[in-house]
Amino acid sequence: MPSYHAPLADFQFLLRDWLKLDKHYQEVGLTDFDVELANEIIAQGAKFATDVVAPLNRDGDEAGCQLQDGKVTTPKGFAAAYQEYVANGWNAMLGPDEFGGQALPYTIAVPIHEMLNSANLSWRLTTMLTESTVLAMCKHASDDLQQKYLHKLVSGEWTGTMNLTEPHAGTDLALLNTKAEPQQDGSYAITGNKIFITGGDHDWTDNIIHMVLARLPDAPKGVKGISLFLVPKLLLDDEGNPATPNALSVGSIEHKMGIKASPTCVMNYDGAKGYLVGEPHQGLACMFTMMNDARFQVGLQGLGAAEASYQGALAYARERLQSRAPQGVQQPGQKADAILFQPDVARMLLTQKSLTEGCRALSLLYAKYMDKERTNPADQQAADVLQFLTPICKAFMTDMGLEVTSLGIQVFGGHGYIREWGMEQLMRDVRIAMLYEGTNGIQALDLIGRKLTRDGGKMLQSTYAAFTDLVTQIEDAEHQSRAQALLDDWRASSAECLGMSAADVAAAACDYLAFSAYSLLGVLWYSMADCAQRADNKAIAESKRKTCAFYEARILGRRDAHRLAFKAGADSVLAVKGAEFDYQ
Amino acid sequence: MPSYHAPLADFQFLLRDWLKLDKHYQEVGLTDFDVELANEIIAQGAKFATDVVAPLNRDGDEAGCQLQDGKVTTPKGFAAAYQEYVANGWNAMLGPDEFGGQALPYTIAVPIHEMLNSANLSWRLTTMLTESTVLAMCKHASDDLQQKYLHKLVSGEWTGTMNLTEPHAGTDLALLNTKAEPQQDGSYAITGNKIFITGGDHDWTDNIIHMVLARLPDAPKGVKGISLFLVPKLLLDDEGNPATPNALSVGSIEHKMGIKASPTCVMNYDGAKGYLVGEPHQGLACMFTMMNDARFQVGLQGLGAAEASYQGALAYARERLQSRAPQGVQQPGQKADAILFQPDVARMLLTQKSLTEGCRALSLLYAKYMDKERTNPADQQAADVLQFLTPICKAFMTDMGLEVTSLGIQVFGGHGYIREWGMEQLMRDVRIAMLYEGTNGIQALDLIGRKLTRDGGKMLQSTYAAFTDLVTQIEDAEHQSRAQALLDDWRASSAECLGMSAADVAAAACDYLAFSAYSLLGVLWYSMADCAQRADNKAIAESKRKTCAFYEARILGRRDAHRLAFKAGADSVLAVKGAEFDYQ
Repeated sequence: MPSYHAPLADFQFLLRDWLKLDKHYQEVGLTDFDVELANEIIAQGAKFATDVVAPLNRDGDEAGCQLQDGKVTTPKGFAAAYQEYVANGWNAMLGPDEFGGQALPYTIAVPIHEMLNSANLSWRLTTMLTESTVLAMCKHASDDLQQKYLHKLVSGEWTGTMNLTEPHAGTDLALLNTKAEPQQDGSYAITGNKIFITGGDHDWTDNIIHMVLARLPDAPKGVKGISLFLVPKLLLDDEGNPATPNALSVGSIEHKMGIKASPTCVMNYDGAKGYLVGEPHQGLACMFTMMNDARFQVGLQGLGAAEASYQGALAYARERLQSRAPQGVQQPGQKADAILFQPDVARMLLTQKSLTEGCRALSLLYAKYMDKERTNPADQQAADVLQFLTPICKAFMTDMGLEVTSLGIQVFGGHGYIREWGMEQLMRDVRIAMLYEGTNGIQALDLIGRKLTRDGGKMLQSTYAAFTDLVTQIEDAEHQSRAQALLDDWRASSAECLGMSAADVAAAACDYLAFSAYSLLGVLWYSMADCAQRADNKAIAESKRKTCAFYEARILGRRDAHRLAFKAGADSVLAVKGAEFDYQ
Repeated sequence: MPSYHAPLADFQFLLRDWLKLDKHYQEVGLTDFDVELANEIIAQGAKFATDVVAPLNRDGDEAGCQLQDGKVTTPKGFAAAYQEYVANGWNAMLGPDEFGGQALPYTIAVPIHEMLNSANLSWRLTTMLTESTVLAMCKHASDDLQQKYLHKLVSGEWTGTMNLTEPHAGTDLALLNTKAEPQQDGSYAITGNKIFITGGDHDWTDNIIHMVLARLPDAPKGVKGISLFLVPKLLLDDEGNPATPNALSVGSIEHKMGIKASPTCVMNYDGAKGYLVGEPHQGLACMFTMMNDARFQVGLQGLGAAEASYQGALAYARERLQSRAPQGVQQPGQKADAILFQPDVARMLLTQKSLTEGCRALSLLYAKYMDKERTNPADQQAADVLQFLTPICKAFMTDMGLEVTSLGIQVFGGHGYIREWGMEQLMRDVRIAMLYEGTNGIQALDLIGRKLTRDGGKMLQSTYAAFTDLVTQIEDAEHQSRAQALLDDWRASSAECLGMSAADVAAAACDYLAFSAYSLLGVLWYSMADCAQRADNKAIAESKRKTCAFYEARILGRRDAHRLAFKAGADSVLAVKGAEFDYQ
């Protein structure tokens, strides 16, 4: 496996030149930060990702996790890497000051997240969920719970988990039936079975804090009767130290396609002591604080895997000599030309590159709006943009991750299918990202069925405005006009969805999301390419300009196919019934 | 894993009603056969695939193959299933009469191949390569070699392999340097290393016959200096029985993403005794006899995996209750509706169905032309159609296999990622099919760079004529006109490729192939749907009509995206150079 290199030059270009980070930090009042500091922290994060985490990735996949005597063991080196991560303060990067966090801007944290995902997706998952747990607790937990638990979750002395899914209740949480019985001491006895719990147990820390959805005895049916509980693996003593084992256990760990070094646990709660987080019956809203964050983070997993695959494929394409290029001999001193010069291989690499870098721009734009929202919760436009872009980031960036990692295998030919090269692991690992935190189909329904239509299309308008900002900064008149036309066309097609029936909306969802993503990525490409012409780095200027041209010529046309599909309505989708699916 | 059911009703419809098998057998002189006999043999094949081979699939993936003391062991039950296959005569289904074969029409064998692939891709591979070996030997080997080896290869007492790839020579066979030194007895001493040898060793038979590409001492450079040799694992004694170990060994077996129950061997030849097959320096032509057959067979692997995945996803979607359907409550007596009623799930299932059944029609049309070619080698139109469709079948049906098996995972949600359900295995297993027997990129270059342009587009014309035959039989005037328009549009766009530069052709290849495949599948759908209206089975009539409408509304638009891409030329693909791929 070619070693991973952090794409620092791209981060620097995007943050300094494209997002204009210095101006942004001034505007949002993050005056402790500037682009120099950002680059410095990101470079340190790059060092950790490449030197500490990436080398564990291949062996971790082979070793997997083990469950013995109720305890989960992660692969060799994983726990030590985590302890180094914590010791260096990385776990605290997003946590609030008051609990020992560094409260870094998202525009600094997101590149670090991407790199951790590229380096070792399995390893990253547990720290990601801890960050989500911190977010949810900051927003919803009582002062008492915050004081008892947040310091150690922020530092990473303890990790967090999300417990939503039950065997019969995945997408439809209304069906969940884990119970919470009130106890005399104000706590609750939690009883039920949860599945697919990432980091449900491990050998990294001496406590794990589970965030568990359950029903109170008097709960209304459906999703309006779900509450959120904090359930520690070990109950704390009076000094706040882990002391007594709680009534919970790991039933089993899953054997999966990928992310084998991440323990995916079946958790059994047998009257475990839990504490209510937020108001009774408001658990879903509380969980959604975690979930929206987690959804964007899952999108970053697609991006991280895509970048790693592109790097591997590019390195191989430069080294592997086979045949002569049809446009003429390229390396006369060699027995054959590097396959990089084969137009079809270059097509695959540029498909990887244009999608990966386009999604990186999307992720950093999203991060910029997260900075805005965090520093000014009253910024409704920022909140709207984030709401609208969350399902796009989650679904598109993970669909893209699958395509790009599959292309990475293809560039390697038969060698891509062999485990030792690591290319197939990237594809297996990233496949989960299309499924968890809400399948990509659910994301698409969220986008078209909720985000698009809510408040008469206000989120669409805010997102349109955010991208118009980018378009107006494009100096090249021809590119500006193409970007504007693309954006207007997207808005017009989006507006046509507003009058659709519920069934048409549902049938259109995935294609509408893909149509939107390819459109918006097009705008991002015109914007980046134009901006790059004024960058100092000539390779960046040429690279972005040419990759934009590639995206326009070879990728953007996918919009048309998705538009035709989503405009076709539900009739052809719902017509087939019963035995017509599989006549005998 | 839901158990596999052979799609017998679809085979029957396609063979009897759509392909009009009785008339076809009369026309090509296969008068020993009729549609009743075909259905009977296919039903027996279905029984073998479902009862004997399919149950071994999941455990085989977990167990994998082992190499110990130079010998390969396959998973439990695999060897016994093979012996049953041989005992029941299945291995001989395509072999010629004179060597004990049954010489079944391809229109009977291809459905059986599809079912074996659905049931257990790993298990099927070795028998597939034996069939290819028989083909190549029938065409190119001397009488003496045929008499000594063909009886037992046809019966399956021995198996065959293809040895092309070397570590530094995959796509570019010109680079291969395995040597063949002439010996006094007329044999050759073969020395070199071959990789990716499927079935290079196993515990099924007491001999294995390797077909090995190597260079004679006086060989011209490049692909014109390659010869084909037959190299048995055990040399035969005077009675023709395996006796003396040949100087060859298994260096290692590969650890792969999937098809883990199929041994993929590194083969070392250390002066092994081999026999020339065909003329000196004509090895590549001889190997292409195997390869064209193998390429179509690999396409069938995509189809087989797709069918298995569709069946699994459909069964799950019918059982899994989550949420209510947006078009209204469907199962009021249940706590929720089956996810089958969710438009987005139906969209995924119908994407699977329309692609799978479309490719099945393509494979049987191909089989019909194989019958024609075999019974009348002078039928140039049949030869043209097969030449043209081979890369399309190989590449499109395997790309399709990946998409469909990934959708199968998606329908299962998180459960699709768990190994015990078997859905992820289908995706891992089928991923190889895009790589071996020439990557799909190589198939696309073969199509656009050789097949399309050779003899002024004659193969295109023959293929156009073959599909026009289908269009003229469409009785519904509206559908006939749409099918004709689609076909004419495809031909016109294809003709535009004829004047392209070599670089433009190479840059266009994959998108041109996909454009062609979606176009031709559209014609097949109009043809099938129309024909089904006159079938006795009402469920088929409705199913084909509605699935055609789905394909037209939701899939066919992909053509536009691929056309835009392949017409864009090579400029945007070749513009990016050197450090512009990964500026620092």
